[in-house]
Amino acid sequence: MSHSVDNAVSAVRTYIEQHRAAFLDDLVDWLRIPSVSAQPEHASDVRCSADWLAAELKETGFPTVEVWPTPGAPAVFAEWPSGDPQAPTVLVYGHHDVQPAAREDGWSSEPFEPVVRENRLYARGAADDKGQVFFHTLGVRAHLAATGRTAPAVNLKLLIEGEEESGSPHFRALVEERAGRLAADAVIVSDTGMWSADTPTVCTGMRGLAECEIRLHGPDQDIHSGSFGGAVPNPATAVARLVSALHDEHARVTVPGFYDGVVELTDRERELFAELPFDERQWLRTAQSYAAHGEAGYTTLERVWARPTAEVNGIGGGYQGPGSKTIVPSSAMVKLSFRLVAGQDPDHVEKAVRAWVTEQVPEGVRCEIVFAPATRPCLTPLDHPALRSVARAMGRAFGAPVRFTREGGSGPAADLQEVLGAPVLFLGISVPSDGWHAPDEKVELDLLLKGAETSAHLWGDLAEHWSHVP
Amino acid sequence: MSHSVDNAVSAVRTYIEQHRAAFLDDLVDWLRIPSVSAQPEHASDVRCSADWLAAELKETGFPTVEVWPTPGAPAVFAEWPSGDPQAPTVLVYGHHDVQPAAREDGWSSEPFEPVVRENRLYARGAADDKGQVFFHTLGVRAHLAATGRTAPAVNLKLLIEGEEESGSPHFRALVEERAGRLAADAVIVSDTGMWSADTPTVCTGMRGLAECEIRLHGPDQDIHSGSFGGAVPNPATAVARLVSALHDEHARVTVPGFYDGVVELTDRERELFAELPFDERQWLRTAQSYAAHGEAGYTTLERVWARPTAEVNGIGGGYQGPGSKTIVPSSAMVKLSFRLVAGQDPDHVEKAVRAWVTEQVPEGVRCEIVFAPATRPCLTPLDHPALRSVARAMGRAFGAPVRFTREGGSGPAADLQEVLGAPVLFLGISVPSDGWHAPDEKVELDLLLKGAETSAHLWGDLAEHWSHVP
Repeated sequence: MSHSVDNAVSAVRTYIEQHRAAFLDDLVDWLRIPSVSAQPEHASDVRCSADWLAAELKETGFPTVEVWPTPGAPAVFAEWPSGDPQAPTVLVYGHHDVQPAAREDGWSSEPFEPVVRENRLYARGAADDKGQVFFHTLGVRAHLAATGRTAPAVNLKLLIEGEEESGSPHFRALVEERAGRLAADAVIVSDTGMWSADTPTVCTGMRGLAECEIRLHGPDQDIHSGSFGGAVPNPATAVARLVSALHDEHARVTVPGFYDGVVELTDRERELFAELPFDERQWLRTAQSYAAHGEAGYTTLERVWARPTAEVNGIGGGYQGPGSKTIVPSSAMVKLSFRLVAGQDPDHVEKAVRAWVTEQVPEGVRCEIVFAPATRPCLTPLDHPALRSVARAMGRAFGAPVRFTREGGSGPAADLQEVLGAPVLFLGISVPSDGWHAPDEKVELDLLLKGAETSAHLWGDLAEHWSHVP
Repeated sequence: MSHSVDNAVSAVRTYIEQHRAAFLDDLVDWLRIPSVSAQPEHASDVRCSADWLAAELKETGFPTVEVWPTPGAPAVFAEWPSGDPQAPTVLVYGHHDVQPAAREDGWSSEPFEPVVRENRLYARGAADDKGQVFFHTLGVRAHLAATGRTAPAVNLKLLIEGEEESGSPHFRALVEERAGRLAADAVIVSDTGMWSADTPTVCTGMRGLAECEIRLHGPDQDIHSGSFGGAVPNPATAVARLVSALHDEHARVTVPGFYDGVVELTDRERELFAELPFDERQWLRTAQSYAAHGEAGYTTLERVWARPTAEVNGIGGGYQGPGSKTIVPSSAMVKLSFRLVAGQDPDHVEKAVRAWVTEQVPEGVRCEIVFAPATRPCLTPLDHPALRSVARAMGRAFGAPVRFTREGGSGPAADLQEVLGAPVLFLGISVPSDGWHAPDEKVELDLLLKGAETSAHLWGDLAEHWSHVP
């Protein structure tokens, strides 16, 4: 590492150490706002979260900060021009809404009353995604302080949406409508994680997501199972048979057409995956699960990063209270989510699932299927210059070699890739034990600050290696 | 019909006509007591109902009347010895508690303020079961009046419990404790119905019931379906596969050993079922269902009366609220009920189900199974002399041929059969439109009095055809 790089690393680190306490105080304020986009009773909290972030970005120094309304929850946009006509334009994407959370789900403390225990900050949204959005505010200030600049080395834009945890139903339309304002050479998504605290990694792709709820209707009301059971179709049985038929004995999805267009893993990618220090027993502990199980012919990492899946998120019907109730239930439902990989078209998947479900439903049972708006998959080539910059910036922050992964989850980044025609890169510092969508979600404070360091190094590196030829 | 039978029919009918008004006034008094065993706030009403009935039975002439306490609601016991050492002993079973009812559930009048409209008596408990218990008080008095006897021709016992609508939690223990007092040659259950007002029928059996809740545990907490889905077992999928595997393509239960001992329908029984004026479209309307579906090779009536079944009463797991939550759920459960027919042993069925479930559960999923106390099936052979007596007595009352049915539901009568070692016979005059457990429950007054007539004829017929050889 050169002397000037050493100096930069040191200057960034010093700035961040000095501003760490105030940064964390601010983040805790934001985490107190229960911006749960899936629950209508929290709609005003999501709006409040957007306003809070907008004020904070203004405070950070962004000359332009706007709250963009949508038919659902608002997004926050901010812009800070470089002043250099050759500078590339980078759009950072994240979200300020969070998953539902309640103390009784198994949290050790109130999910919206952040607490620090053992250098970890516990709160819903600590890692997914408020913490990872917020480290950029400290990062850009450290970048300016360390370089003596008054504006970032790149034209820096932020788009922080408010409906990611609800499937981003209005995000695509927003991006299309505001495409001019959002125009960028690259998109940096800070809504993912890395391998582990010891193994910094850059993610190169995310899976897409198609979700549906299937509701099956049998008798008009719950009916007596003694008088009628065994002689009429039971919608709870029908929904179970549907779920059961979804996978074959190789754990492959049976829906005809589901795998159409799937981009298969290359040998090189399978090698890179295999080189990662993957410990299946440790992974299972993180998954809090007791066996690995998935599509035959693929490793666990391949299954979660590069293979499409069908998963039951919820199932319900009939009497679920204490004791018993001898009924044939009137209806039953299942919520399914399908993870999609590069090459799969969500519209095609929806059509395939609808056709398959309709064919499975037995006589005397009526079926409703509602699909949520889908998220497309995305994948960035390993040799892309902006991807190299992200890897270098992260390497400086962590002082360790950076490897490459993918992400099994899904995000609306693919819409940005498609509408803006810009490659999507992923910069995340969350680790697998952070408990996304689970009780006791947390972020490691040391890694959160490394995220800020990475952000501080990235803008200069991008400007240096990827500026427009005048 | 012989001249003496004609005389007996006429004498009974005359007595009942003469005492009809007072009988109905008394029944209305009883129906005013809201003896809802499921609702703790009505506990004193259930006790009051027992006391009311005990006083009434004393008034009827029973020399022994006792209110038997249980850890829950009390039962009423009454005994009237014949005086004839050869006379058989008969125990009448019914219940004095009722289902919950409130005007706002859809009643046309207050459920506990009985009213007569168009020769029907509307009140909670009118048919289930106070009306059908009470017709025996008029019946035994008519029997005495018509025969000039001062005691019934049989040793007559009554056991009227107070927790039937709450699943009879203390009934089995009560019967075991009082088995000596309850000893009988036959049990007459008056808590069922008949085919229709035009088609008097005698029920010859009820199905048994085994119920369980199966809970499958996967990850220790709900986990992110993007990060882990497709690579660990999903308990909601596992519960669905379990339910799906419960029936084969012929809708037969697949649990090995489930059908062990099942008493198959005889050709004669199938003929008798087929002779009933069954209209499947009408039956489906009553079932509020849109297709008949059940075990291959059996008619709808055979399926609900004479075949064992496995039914899902409730299923649940994961996120069931509005919108979506992309998780692999931590657990999922299903409530199953198995209707059992004669020859099936609930303990054997429980063992078979436990073994089968345990074998189905995939690696990495933990399983809990809880069975509720079971109800045994009961079935009386068509040629049993006491059953012939019930059919003859009913034939005299209705002046029409009596046919035979079964009951798909389950009741505590089987405990009496098992503990007392006596066959169970069913004498009920309620019709399907009587609205058991529903708003506007009623009893047809003409049929109620036919019930009293049947009771009046039954005791003499039993003594004549079934007395002990001295």
